[in-house]
Amino acid sequence: MAQEPPTQKAVRWYPPSYDIRVESVPIPEITEPDDVIVKIKLAGLCGSDLHAYRGDGDDDMTPHIPGHEFIGEVVKLGSSFGEHATGRPGLYSSLKIGDKVVSPFTTNCGECRACRLGITCRCPQGTLFGCPALDGAQAQYVRVPKAGGTLFNLSDPKSWSDLLPNANVAEALSTISDSSLLLLADILPTGVFAVAQALNHPKLVPILTGVAWPPREGSTTANTIPSEDRTLTFAIIGLGPVGICASVALVDRLAAIGLPYRIVAIDTYAARRENMEKIFGQISNHGNGEFVARSPEEARTTVKEWTSGSGCNAVLEVVGHPSALTLAYDLVQPFGIITSVGVHGKPQLPFNGGNLYDKNVSFDFGRCPARAMFPMAFELLVKRQDVFGQVGTPTSLVDRIVSVDQAAEMYRAFDKREVGKVLFDPWE
Amino acid sequence: MAQEPPTQKAVRWYPPSYDIRVESVPIPEITEPDDVIVKIKLAGLCGSDLHAYRGDGDDDMTPHIPGHEFIGEVVKLGSSFGEHATGRPGLYSSLKIGDKVVSPFTTNCGECRACRLGITCRCPQGTLFGCPALDGAQAQYVRVPKAGGTLFNLSDPKSWSDLLPNANVAEALSTISDSSLLLLADILPTGVFAVAQALNHPKLVPILTGVAWPPREGSTTANTIPSEDRTLTFAIIGLGPVGICASVALVDRLAAIGLPYRIVAIDTYAARRENMEKIFGQISNHGNGEFVARSPEEARTTVKEWTSGSGCNAVLEVVGHPSALTLAYDLVQPFGIITSVGVHGKPQLPFNGGNLYDKNVSFDFGRCPARAMFPMAFELLVKRQDVFGQVGTPTSLVDRIVSVDQAAEMYRAFDKREVGKVLFDPWE
Repeated sequence: MAQEPPTQKAVRWYPPSYDIRVESVPIPEITEPDDVIVKIKLAGLCGSDLHAYRGDGDDDMTPHIPGHEFIGEVVKLGSSFGEHATGRPGLYSSLKIGDKVVSPFTTNCGECRACRLGITCRCPQGTLFGCPALDGAQAQYVRVPKAGGTLFNLSDPKSWSDLLPNANVAEALSTISDSSLLLLADILPTGVFAVAQALNHPKLVPILTGVAWPPREGSTTANTIPSEDRTLTFAIIGLGPVGICASVALVDRLAAIGLPYRIVAIDTYAARRENMEKIFGQISNHGNGEFVARSPEEARTTVKEWTSGSGCNAVLEVVGHPSALTLAYDLVQPFGIITSVGVHGKPQLPFNGGNLYDKNVSFDFGRCPARAMFPMAFELLVKRQDVFGQVGTPTSLVDRIVSVDQAAEMYRAFDKREVGKVLFDPWE
Repeated sequence: MAQEPPTQKAVRWYPPSYDIRVESVPIPEITEPDDVIVKIKLAGLCGSDLHAYRGDGDDDMTPHIPGHEFIGEVVKLGSSFGEHATGRPGLYSSLKIGDKVVSPFTTNCGECRACRLGITCRCPQGTLFGCPALDGAQAQYVRVPKAGGTLFNLSDPKSWSDLLPNANVAEALSTISDSSLLLLADILPTGVFAVAQALNHPKLVPILTGVAWPPREGSTTANTIPSEDRTLTFAIIGLGPVGICASVALVDRLAAIGLPYRIVAIDTYAARRENMEKIFGQISNHGNGEFVARSPEEARTTVKEWTSGSGCNAVLEVVGHPSALTLAYDLVQPFGIITSVGVHGKPQLPFNGGNLYDKNVSFDFGRCPARAMFPMAFELLVKRQDVFGQVGTPTSLVDRIVSVDQAAEMYRAFDKREVGKVLFDPWE
């Protein structure tokens, strides 16, 4: 007589939409040599989980465990790990049972050309957690494929902290809460990525350096820009958790740059705007800037007034809807930058080639390479614990930690924007 | 009895399409204080003139003189010029009757914030030459509005050569032909601009520096990329005159960078591909690279073979048609760059937001700020006279110099790709 496999409590998504259940399902097993099984401490509910929840996600309607943000403890290692892993990413040799880990929202092999270049979000072997192809983390256990390329070992900061010469990593790790570390799985690196794409774009070089376009090596006598032209104007569209992270990351970088700046943070929901302004008020050392939260229509007026009609240097689009792209196009200045980290689907783009030509628009689309952004995001997390550090306070990024038994109600309330960011404790 | 105004010979465009005439029309007069009248020595016929020729241009169907590329001599100055121009762009004080000038294809005031930043193509007062709003240069004379912001004074290289510390400007000017200098009006800076946008893009930083994404100041121990991953792969779509300029500019920059590279230059016309390969053969010191010209279908295979299916680091799109954007999308690697300097119109873009998200595509669209790119383009022109220097040779960018009397036939033949770049001598 076959023995029943051991079971766990897990959230399950059912087609076609708005059907979230909590069920008893088998605990995942190692199926490939590079797999690791992680016992979940906390798993996040993310805005992009709502795409599937609302039924506007993938065509594959197979029921599955959702969730792509988690922190936990290694409980099983595949056969690749340990002494046989010479020449492979270091984590294959060093990871041990009991290590505390956080994972980016997609797996990545760590060994292909994309991974070597740091484009970890485009590893050909990468899979998003919480899809029909790979069960997610809103459960008691999760299987992590390609775990030696994917995971961050928080118990062994030496394995990744060589990129953080200025942070006292061990001390930081001892003081930062798990709910705060969980932000590293997706929303914080995604916000940092949006900001990095905009601030590293060559179209910002004239403002940042004070030397007129084009950027040019060896030109010491080039046209210099008067200081009154060097105020930076940004818009951030979408003030969900990623938008908040992007806002804090942007303020942090602009404070370091030292130029005067103006940021308009935009959301249709008044409660999110109020929250965002409160969070800005909490940021110490925010440099020489102005920060306001506005509705889309108000933002059009604000940007017109600020820039005498010309528009923003850069717009960060964190929504993933055509209306957000339309607003971004309208708000950006000619020769400006739109960085879009929102998850877009099949609708037509709300502009044609002529519109883009006529305004010299630059676009950066797509998913954050979270694995590669981790050190920058971790540094910001440590530096800005006044914002990221507290759960359940009015301005916290994490609204509440609840039992997975409340998953159906939390999905409903999050979809209606009645709650902020929710984390599940699967053992409560 | 009113005296008849003096007349000139000019090309005229008539609606709706394919109707080019040569007529006797009044010589333009100074109408604004910032105007200059230029006596044309040579005027170019450009690929973008064909948009109006074919009737797929602007909605305004007023007959007008086309042409936005010219070199000539100042014959009249508006009242702003001379001793009263203190505090304005230097050219208002220094320009004199008889000076030899070249102009970018659009006017720009030189005094607004866009002009100060070097975004001269987006000056709110800028106008394209050769439109209903401003007669063009395929004539004996042209009126240049905002001339103190717009023109380059080739008789006074000190007024712009401070950006060219390494070029012996005066000597270069004495040896370079007018037909070669005319390339500075549009096609050479546009090609240089396309290349500069791609090579300055942050997504190329990992390859150029050998340090994995994200670009990060102060990180000395970051992940380094093995040299075998640092071969650059580019595609250039469209081998008309701008595509040739972009190809030469790209090879020039890649030779200076020194990394191994592969370029596939793409056109549907075999004659253009053959010509492009011959031109590459003429480029001395072309670095450590491979350069092939291919049809669109062949190019898909070539890029697949070169990159094991992943795609190009960057694609330069110089055509201005949705099919070229489709090809660019297909050829670019995930996390790659598409720089589009082709003039696009009202057709829908051939991809949706999901396509762009799924591939992390970056786009740079739009018109070259030719005024600002002039020094870089001039430097390349001087350096690569082996390519740019000769008229009428099989591999020259300038196919022939003809009388404006041949305008109708030349438009027809250029539209049919029976001739290469044509310049008009309006005095012949």
